Amino acid sequence: MMSTEQALKVEVDRLRTEVQALELKSTISVGNYLLTRLAQLGVTAMFGVPGDFNLGFLDLVEDHPNIDWIGNCNELNAAYAADGYARIKETLGVVTTTFGVGELSAINGIAGAFSEMVPVLHLVGIPSTVQQKTRPLLHHTLGDGRFDAYRQAVSQFTVHNAYLMNKTEAPLQIDTAITECITKARPVYITLPTDMVLQEVPTERLHTPLSPNRPPNDSLKEQFVVNQIYDLAKEAEGDVVVLVDACVTRHGVKGEVLQLLKETSFPVYSTPMGKTAVDESWKRYGGIYVGLLSHPDVKEKVEGAKLIISIGSLGSDFNTGNFSYNISTHHLVELHSDHTKVQYARYDNIGMKQMLPKLTERLQSFYPVASKISVPAFIRPLPKEDGHAISHFWFWPRLGSFFKSKDIIVTETGTANFGILDVPLPGGATLINQILWGSIGWSVGSCLGAALAARDLGMQRVMLFVGDGSLQLTVQELSPMIRSGLKPIIFVLNNKGYSIERYIHGKHRKYNDVANWKWTAMLDTLNDGIKHETQSYAVTTKEELNDLLNDSSFASASKIQLVEVLMNAFDAPLPLLRQAELSGKGNAY
Amino acid sequence: MMSTEQALKVEVDRLRTEVQALELKSTISVGNYLLTRLAQLGVTAMFGVPGDFNLGFLDLVEDHPNIDWIGNCNELNAAYAADGYARIKETLGVVTTTFGVGELSAINGIAGAFSEMVPVLHLVGIPSTVQQKTRPLLHHTLGDGRFDAYRQAVSQFTVHNAYLMNKTEAPLQIDTAITECITKARPVYITLPTDMVLQEVPTERLHTPLSPNRPPNDSLKEQFVVNQIYDLAKEAEGDVVVLVDACVTRHGVKGEVLQLLKETSFPVYSTPMGKTAVDESWKRYGGIYVGLLSHPDVKEKVEGAKLIISIGSLGSDFNTGNFSYNISTHHLVELHSDHTKVQYARYDNIGMKQMLPKLTERLQSFYPVASKISVPAFIRPLPKEDGHAISHFWFWPRLGSFFKSKDIIVTETGTANFGILDVPLPGGATLINQILWGSIGWSVGSCLGAALAARDLGMQRVMLFVGDGSLQLTVQELSPMIRSGLKPIIFVLNNKGYSIERYIHGKHRKYNDVANWKWTAMLDTLNDGIKHETQSYAVTTKEELNDLLNDSSFASASKIQLVEVLMNAFDAPLPLLRQAELSGKGNAY
Repeated sequence: MMSTEQALKVEVDRLRTEVQALELKSTISVGNYLLTRLAQLGVTAMFGVPGDFNLGFLDLVEDHPNIDWIGNCNELNAAYAADGYARIKETLGVVTTTFGVGELSAINGIAGAFSEMVPVLHLVGIPSTVQQKTRPLLHHTLGDGRFDAYRQAVSQFTVHNAYLMNKTEAPLQIDTAITECITKARPVYITLPTDMVLQEVPTERLHTPLSPNRPPNDSLKEQFVVNQIYDLAKEAEGDVVVLVDACVTRHGVKGEVLQLLKETSFPVYSTPMGKTAVDESWKRYGGIYVGLLSHPDVKEKVEGAKLIISIGSLGSDFNTGNFSYNISTHHLVELHSDHTKVQYARYDNIGMKQMLPKLTERLQSFYPVASKISVPAFIRPLPKEDGHAISHFWFWPRLGSFFKSKDIIVTETGTANFGILDVPLPGGATLINQILWGSIGWSVGSCLGAALAARDLGMQRVMLFVGDGSLQLTVQELSPMIRSGLKPIIFVLNNKGYSIERYIHGKHRKYNDVANWKWTAMLDTLNDGIKHETQSYAVTTKEELNDLLNDSSFASASKIQLVEVLMNAFDAPLPLLRQAELSGKGNAY
Repeated sequence: MMSTEQALKVEVDRLRTEVQALELKSTISVGNYLLTRLAQLGVTAMFGVPGDFNLGFLDLVEDHPNIDWIGNCNELNAAYAADGYARIKETLGVVTTTFGVGELSAINGIAGAFSEMVPVLHLVGIPSTVQQKTRPLLHHTLGDGRFDAYRQAVSQFTVHNAYLMNKTEAPLQIDTAITECITKARPVYITLPTDMVLQEVPTERLHTPLSPNRPPNDSLKEQFVVNQIYDLAKEAEGDVVVLVDACVTRHGVKGEVLQLLKETSFPVYSTPMGKTAVDESWKRYGGIYVGLLSHPDVKEKVEGAKLIISIGSLGSDFNTGNFSYNISTHHLVELHSDHTKVQYARYDNIGMKQMLPKLTERLQSFYPVASKISVPAFIRPLPKEDGHAISHFWFWPRLGSFFKSKDIIVTETGTANFGILDVPLPGGATLINQILWGSIGWSVGSCLGAALAARDLGMQRVMLFVGDGSLQLTVQELSPMIRSGLKPIIFVLNNKGYSIERYIHGKHRKYNDVANWKWTAMLDTLNDGIKHETQSYAVTTKEELNDLLNDSSFASASKIQLVEVLMNAFDAPLPLLRQAELSGKGNAY
């Protein structure tokens, strides 16, 4: 018989083995740790281009049950796709590139996400931790031993960077980076050395999900701010207007804003970047406010209100009619993700997500008064116009009646961004654009990402409006759309050049012309063999476009379709002409 | 009659008017000052994309009698084109972009030029000097008022930056930037605010041309170094081998090196990046030395020599058979643009350009001994191979007999870069590649630039060898080739994916597959209307390729042509397989 001591020793040995076995089970590779985090946040697609420093990680992506690898044609397009995906899916978008050549190609897309406040994770496969230290003269290096030059460049456009160098710190580094990305709605950068991918780390942290919520507002301070706003609304006798902008979507407060609007009946208007943050079918919605470029009745209603509650504003030139708001700070409250402004006072760390419900509660007493304030109807009937040619004046209202609920509409910088502004979109439709950053070509990659997100969310049709000049920058990204079986409708506004530039400067200059490609042959040329059905059309008259839009087979968007819309090189939507005039003044030669 | 004083006063007035008139004539706008400098250096083409902050400057470019504006499809491609132009024209290449969105899109191309030592001037149109100071929330900004973020990023990859802010300093700033670019053979960055373009500055400095020459070597130090090298050559009893590398071309010493070779009869070999720096038809040329990956006879000859004079070396992994040189520092002399190494000693500021003629003179006495050293003939007869499929083993030697003197050959990272190595090229033919930076897609933009430079120089045919995966990154740049009436022959090696990656990792992984485009429809789709004749072919067998190459109409390259070469996805040139194996070891997962 064993002594007690012996028995205990045996038991200790047994338990130790058991613990070891459990510990073995409770580890996961660094690469899969990261993927698990992404999957937890609803990420189902990863964009990028393979390179020899990320291939081992891509094995894990390809094998992952919930995340698809979307091979893009190049890295800039991949970054744009991650941006579009993040905007529609309302989680982070992820782009994976390789050391140097890949990450630098993506940098403009990352900077755009920074500027426009889109949560994009840029993940870069880099040489091994050993090579990071010995710094040999590898391909994809600058030849001078500087292995930190890329991160110096990239980190100008991120809110956080995590350089994974050892497995002990990796899980926390990954969690911190992702949390920064989703709470600040801006890009972060993670470098993943080849030899870190398969290092085993504990799964422990994975049991606690990451949260996009910012730290709670100080409740006394918040109450004070809510009271301040209430007092102003009272002073205004309920003559309050709400102005929604980009960050309503970016910081996930669409629901909170809708609640405020429902409970108070305040009239609501949108900026260009905030378009569709509130359903345009909402009964108290009056259209787009964009300073001097607004419709006269909208301008009068917004600027005449005694109090304006601006939510998630982003006051860039193109979003404000070149800074032509006529709103006194005296009558202005601004709600932001991380601070609030009431007249001239700034309250740091009072974020709108948490304050909005309290504000709604406090302001609902104004319903009876506010509901009596008239709101101009945002309706744009199809104008009568002579001539067969398709003008912007006619095109955009015509498209207005083509759009349906749950459509996703992606517009490119240039005529499309301005043309869509004055079109009322159906409830549930979503518009995305890049008005602040304005990088031409963005919409194409973004449309790919948006279409993948839309498929996930069970949304209906995705439509891209892009000029021929812009489409030339990123045209190859139509290929992954076809290859992934996506079915967007791509409207190519062929006006033979950079029309927005023509109106800013050099109207008849050759540098504003582009080659006139065979647009209707493009989908077929980029098709992957003959696996996917594609269809292309060219329309030159109002009648042809009418016929196409009225065709139920076309409208059902059951395959990828491209519509070349032939337009006059010197036609443009009116707001663009006026914006271009104002911009030109700031940059006189 | 006038008094003397009165007469003098009249004369003073007259002279003042004359001086004023002359001064008026003797000024020039800042924009044209810059263009005059570029034209003086032989620049005939400027690459880029218009944007609202560079349009006023583009007016001047479009109106310039000697410089053509080549509108690229996007900025990365434009940077690649400037790089290719600079390599062939042997002057600087210029890329013009716009603030933020444009300059960041080009950054990978600029970093590549830094790494590979190519003189590229990156000129960026930015908001006015007033807006640089007031920093409004313009489009193309980050939304946080940081107007210096782009230059922080870009300057990681330049040797000099000039931020033009006032007209007094602008001429000197421009001259300094251009001089740095051409003497260091690396990128520089100039920002041009909109309101600087038309400011008038004195023409005075323009009378003194800018020189690419480095400061003179210290003559006593140089003589000492020449003597050191002579002593080593004497000790080696004339058993000396010359090894030429990338910087022979980059720093313009091809003539000086040829003189050395002629006067000494030293055997000469080339690295991959130095290929065609010495004519491959030169009687004392023995082929490519690339460490372990060399042909056995070349390896033996180079490593067995008692002294190796390496000229312009760039010891990157892919240029050295993954650092597998078997050459003792004891037997090594290295000549560089700005320093010299003799065995273990380093001599700063002793540059090769000035020293080479003196070295030639000092070493010519070895001619009798050196001329007796045998050099293996660099001849690669067409191998016999069964089967109709086009293998790399057969393809490259077959192309070898298609090449002619004055051909320019551009090869892409991947199978093409490795395949071309073992092909002897005719005298006067030039090869360009991007072995160190290795950014896939580079060759397409670069081919555009190279073809424009070739047309200037009266060189004959331009041929591009690019895989289908790489071509997808930058395919739109075929369009400016067509539009500019260029006539390259584009060989698309269609192996349905990233073959080089397959051999490094993930041979059968889906992430290494790309969509199989209709390559033979591409030129037609990207044609500008039907203005330019294009022709495309697909070849799947040796016989078909033979027939095409033997067709004199095809070989005359009288129009732009695309040849889709269908290859097995798992075939690759032997040196690639060996390199991939060595690289894979450094990045084990």
